[in-house]
Amino acid sequence: MARVGVLLAGCGFLDGTEIHEAVCTLLFLDRAGAEIVCFAPDSNQHHIINHLNQQEAMGRRNVLEESARIARCEIKPLAQVKEADLDALIIPGGFGAAKNLCDFAFKGAEMTVKPEVDALVNQMADAGKPIGAICISPVILAKSLGSRKPSITIGNDSGTAQAIETMGGSHVDKPVDDIVVDEKLKLVTTPAYMVGPSIKHVAAGIEKLVEKVLALI
Amino acid sequence: MARVGVLLAGCGFLDGTEIHEAVCTLLFLDRAGAEIVCFAPDSNQHHIINHLNQQEAMGRRNVLEESARIARCEIKPLAQVKEADLDALIIPGGFGAAKNLCDFAFKGAEMTVKPEVDALVNQMADAGKPIGAICISPVILAKSLGSRKPSITIGNDSGTAQAIETMGGSHVDKPVDDIVVDEKLKLVTTPAYMVGPSIKHVAAGIEKLVEKVLALI
Repeated sequence: MARVGVLLAGCGFLDGTEIHEAVCTLLFLDRAGAEIVCFAPDSNQHHIINHLNQQEAMGRRNVLEESARIARCEIKPLAQVKEADLDALIIPGGFGAAKNLCDFAFKGAEMTVKPEVDALVNQMADAGKPIGAICISPVILAKSLGSRKPSITIGNDSGTAQAIETMGGSHVDKPVDDIVVDEKLKLVTTPAYMVGPSIKHVAAGIEKLVEKVLALI
Repeated sequence: MARVGVLLAGCGFLDGTEIHEAVCTLLFLDRAGAEIVCFAPDSNQHHIINHLNQQEAMGRRNVLEESARIARCEIKPLAQVKEADLDALIIPGGFGAAKNLCDFAFKGAEMTVKPEVDALVNQMADAGKPIGAICISPVILAKSLGSRKPSITIGNDSGTAQAIETMGGSHVDKPVDDIVVDEKLKLVTTPAYMVGPSIKHVAAGIEKLVEKVLALI
């Protein structure tokens, strides 16, 4: 049984992981018979966004605690998950990936990746283990694996595509129901809600991504 | 295009709507071509449960704001959604349904249903419009429609089944991937995480529930 890590970054697309993308990932992994290892940083979210009015809200929320809502309590801290524990890694999208796992949302191509995430991504790539990245999460691959010239997609947003190229990646435009596969680096990416418009379209791309990630193990 | 209301109760199964159940409902409705109308009470959650340690946490969260995370901001207050706006209604589960839509989690068969929810459920039934209820949510149908002797399932939990019978319902044991259909009242129920164990099993029952709810319109 393949052990697949699912790296979460909160719960809600404006300040955490995009919920539909994460749940579709879990559904397709479970249907394929994979063992799922959800994990997330044990740190505060960058901020809280009220998803009703889309304004910043007062207070603090912990990324691991909020991610545990999606994982139904079955979740580990990022610091406790090593490359050796996983056969593959999938990173769903949402602004949480761009705010809590790296700072792309604020710095664009000048971004930095959270050190534990950067290390894990590089170790997975060194070990020849596949990585799937959904929606905005491929920017993490562009930065962490930029020197290896990863081929990835975030859909067709020209600003984000340009940032990916600046960081060393090669961007390929794709529709929401399709994937880009970098066979050499074993990377699989799909645009999801970077393109949308709705969950059935996003699910179609994620189903292909999960299937391909598992096939690359 | 059928307009289907999805009544949410927060975001996370211990204090709000069960996220997997809600997202699977949205996915299967979208695939079937339904128009989805997410809505939730604009009121405070009964409490907050930290989903990492499963303990009660300090603070307050608003049911509508948290539900908006699942709905990607596309959500209405319960008070603004009327029976005339909907062709069908689906209520996902999670403790939120039993804490924020009614008080079954605290009072069992002595429960009361939030008045706006009780009114909407009765108006839908009066109008001959189908209602789907997932996981623990069928207790709302047992209470609100008890005098009409609804036939429903929450799986096989004997305590909850007894409470349903006490409130006037007729409980039918079912496995996670099956549904109970009350053809007379147009009610469809499935056990989901009342049985589990994992998302693929829950999704199988919800897919049948969505298909049957749409067929009953």
